[in-house]
Amino acid sequence: MSDTATRPFDHDAPADVFRVPQPLSPAPEARRRTAAEEARTLVAQATLGTLATLSDDGHPWGSMVAYGSLEDGSPVLCVSTLAEHGRNLLRDARASLVVTEADREGDPLDGGRVTLAGRAVRPEGERAAAARAAHVAAVPAAETYADFGDFALYVLEVDRVRWVGGFGRMDSATAEDYRAAEPDPVAASAAYAVRHLNDDHADVLLLVAQVLGGYGDAESATCVRADRYGLDLRVKTPRGGAPCRIGFAEPITAPDGLRAASVELAQRARTA
Amino acid sequence: MSDTATRPFDHDAPADVFRVPQPLSPAPEARRRTAAEEARTLVAQATLGTLATLSDDGHPWGSMVAYGSLEDGSPVLCVSTLAEHGRNLLRDARASLVVTEADREGDPLDGGRVTLAGRAVRPEGERAAAARAAHVAAVPAAETYADFGDFALYVLEVDRVRWVGGFGRMDSATAEDYRAAEPDPVAASAAYAVRHLNDDHADVLLLVAQVLGGYGDAESATCVRADRYGLDLRVKTPRGGAPCRIGFAEPITAPDGLRAASVELAQRARTA
Repeated sequence: MSDTATRPFDHDAPADVFRVPQPLSPAPEARRRTAAEEARTLVAQATLGTLATLSDDGHPWGSMVAYGSLEDGSPVLCVSTLAEHGRNLLRDARASLVVTEADREGDPLDGGRVTLAGRAVRPEGERAAAARAAHVAAVPAAETYADFGDFALYVLEVDRVRWVGGFGRMDSATAEDYRAAEPDPVAASAAYAVRHLNDDHADVLLLVAQVLGGYGDAESATCVRADRYGLDLRVKTPRGGAPCRIGFAEPITAPDGLRAASVELAQRARTA
Repeated sequence: MSDTATRPFDHDAPADVFRVPQPLSPAPEARRRTAAEEARTLVAQATLGTLATLSDDGHPWGSMVAYGSLEDGSPVLCVSTLAEHGRNLLRDARASLVVTEADREGDPLDGGRVTLAGRAVRPEGERAAAARAAHVAAVPAAETYADFGDFALYVLEVDRVRWVGGFGRMDSATAEDYRAAEPDPVAASAAYAVRHLNDDHADVLLLVAQVLGGYGDAESATCVRADRYGLDLRVKTPRGGAPCRIGFAEPITAPDGLRAASVELAQRARTA
């Protein structure tokens, strides 16, 4: 194994910009959330996004919208024809919705965001009732105005999903995979867990990076993200800094599962 | 003057939804920021927005972007052709940028946002240097990648501006007015000032609403917004709640001017 490797970016840039030190000993490939899971997780953690629609002259028009989600992750909007986006959707159903990661620390360009592109369709029958309930659950104020004559519910029927997780983390998902995926159950507690691990368990993170991550020469390790499948660490070595992914023994299935999974990691590192 | 009046919304809704109690005594009309000033202020307080562009099949495509601003408020983007929005702008310059108010408390649908629609143009000559400097000043990380071969700077040449300040506060501005307007110098300190006024000077706010705002029957007054021209209060009266705008004696011209302007209001209310 070479000591360094160029990561597979296609930026038209000097190759050594992306050179990072590799593990000194083999480390198992650790499972990550799929792009579909990342997208579902981002959509589930927010109720505000930006909608792109087409103005009457074909110009792309962006506007803020509130949304809820059906069980399959299809966003539900409630828009007024007093607003340009409402008039746009009446004329042309093509739209995309951008949702960004809330409450992130650090460089915002390194945060998550997703674009869902598709067609905004007025739901009918039982789907209309489900759509109204989903929207009002996410946007309680809509209870007041959802039935005004100028407002209408739309379900964004997603055809195309593009997820960007931050620098060098991005992928597309099919609409089918998006609808079938689950939002990460630990998303709401991950930011707290990351802070807690860094503030109170830096020694454990370093041991985990050295023993389980293959970075035997790591001098420090910081947790940058936590999810149902594992932790993303950032290690410092005499050879430079590197990302280091550590997988949990099993995927977490409950919202409060990060603590037990982290304890298991620590035990595994101590007894390896 | 009638005791209540219907506010001029055009929602297709029961009229009494928007009925609010009017002042009991005449209150002077208080200056407000124009839509152009609101837009410039929103654009100046953030460096992240959502860009709407056109995909190759004409579908509207939304994506997160970082931006800086030229002196006239024209946004400067730095985008890669590895990203769909970068490829879209190469093919079709039409775009719009949405910026939302950061760090607001309360109902996010009652927060500010602005859409700037126009054409994204590659700057040349001196304008290119000014655009690069403006972008990097707002997005320091761009110093690293702005010169990669796949990245390009674009200035969004704004043709159309739509501002929404929240429920019932919205207007359009011409591109000329947008470019000529100033961002509000007190925008960065306004949230702190609002909290301070509510936490420590509720008695002053009530007196101001009663004496200067014409709501002699106000039982309480809360400050909801502060800007260079005045305060937006929310009063409670036995007739119901109402918004109440109070103007400062002079527009504030310095970032730290809210304290002195508020002290002047209090003195004016006590001696009226």
